[in-house]
Amino acid sequence: MTYCVALNLNEGLVLLADSRTNAGIDNISTFSKMFTWTVPSGTDHSRAIALMTAGNLSITQEIIGLINEENNFNAEHSILRAPSLFRVTERVGQLMSEVQARRGPNLHASGVSAGASIIVAGQVVGEPTRLFMVYTEGNFIEATDDTPFMQIGEFKYGKPILDRTVDPSLPLQDGVKAALLSMDATMRSNLSVGMPVDLAVLTAGNTDWVQRRFTRDDTVFQELSETWSEHLRTGFQAMPPVPL
Amino acid sequence: MTYCVALNLNEGLVLLADSRTNAGIDNISTFSKMFTWTVPSGTDHSRAIALMTAGNLSITQEIIGLINEENNFNAEHSILRAPSLFRVTERVGQLMSEVQARRGPNLHASGVSAGASIIVAGQVVGEPTRLFMVYTEGNFIEATDDTPFMQIGEFKYGKPILDRTVDPSLPLQDGVKAALLSMDATMRSNLSVGMPVDLAVLTAGNTDWVQRRFTRDDTVFQELSETWSEHLRTGFQAMPPVPL
Repeated sequence: MTYCVALNLNEGLVLLADSRTNAGIDNISTFSKMFTWTVPSGTDHSRAIALMTAGNLSITQEIIGLINEENNFNAEHSILRAPSLFRVTERVGQLMSEVQARRGPNLHASGVSAGASIIVAGQVVGEPTRLFMVYTEGNFIEATDDTPFMQIGEFKYGKPILDRTVDPSLPLQDGVKAALLSMDATMRSNLSVGMPVDLAVLTAGNTDWVQRRFTRDDTVFQELSETWSEHLRTGFQAMPPVPL
Repeated sequence: MTYCVALNLNEGLVLLADSRTNAGIDNISTFSKMFTWTVPSGTDHSRAIALMTAGNLSITQEIIGLINEENNFNAEHSILRAPSLFRVTERVGQLMSEVQARRGPNLHASGVSAGASIIVAGQVVGEPTRLFMVYTEGNFIEATDDTPFMQIGEFKYGKPILDRTVDPSLPLQDGVKAALLSMDATMRSNLSVGMPVDLAVLTAGNTDWVQRRFTRDDTVFQELSETWSEHLRTGFQAMPPVPL
């Protein structure tokens, strides 16, 4: 499985993806599920775009492959030239529909799920930062101020911490903490989500993704995880007993 | 949906069940999902048994109905006379298989899930407290010291807090706190799990279930939930920023 989470905050975007892929419980590999593109500030079509993917790996890789082909050789459909992040997401949804139509029947005939979902995030200069999620069927939704985050994959374990901490006014640095704690809760409770973890942060108005990979022995991640665990433990012990 | 959780600790058992049932998003009702039986200490077949149910309500109600019929009129199959909690669970699994065989085909033909699961917990005097989970197919597993809790229904939201706090040495009072915080996380993140919440506690060696219902305006539950939220918020804010 997979867990990816994205926050659209007033200060910018925070994206976090695990990298564990499994075909059966005994065939586990590492594949990055995060893909970023930049057209620098001051040039035509200036923008920052990121995709995170979950579900059938051959489906999502084919979509990423087609996006790169179009960016290089098909200006009409290139997500690097689309006039808005809505149009970028619409193109990703069209590619999802095309790949599903091409691969779905054979996969279903073999009893293999073709399900996939894609988070699309970024900023086309002139617009605010935006955040979308594309479903298997190619349709999509956009995050709003009421629910400024999107999750794909094994999302339930890591949702309570987001529900309690994330709103659009959260500083970008705190958004990174919230995303990492959400990932930590998921990895502790579900073996199919695992290290390394890829982080991408975009400050609003900027086109440069700040990226960082956390590996298993990353001391920053370990310290965050342990500090949080310790805080939960002491808080739990300090709570008064419940009268029965 | 439903969320039920049970802890088998050295000091005894903690069981907690929500009471929300829905047939579609616009047809929501309250049904208790917790059922307890007691044969008092000092009498023959002394024991305490509790079941919690999730899944298709007609399936689980039929099973509970059959258990009560057998307790009253069929000593051979009565769970109030079975020689161990293993045999109690085996009987619950047999009833699950019978009801699935009787109702499953018609339900499947209408596209309705017949899926159900049942937690069986208690103590047949002479044995330690034990904890089992019965699946739709009638097979079952038992909790061990490595994983001393069982969950059914919408279990993922409330699993991280259990993974961090529960082991067999946890005092019974702390087990109650852990179960309530797990339920609180689930209710905050998933509308299909809701108040009132039913708690049952059994001190090892005893046959009396201590039971308590928490309603929406229960100040003890509200205070627990708010104290925990406040603790998470302050801990989150106090954590150092993550260097990018």
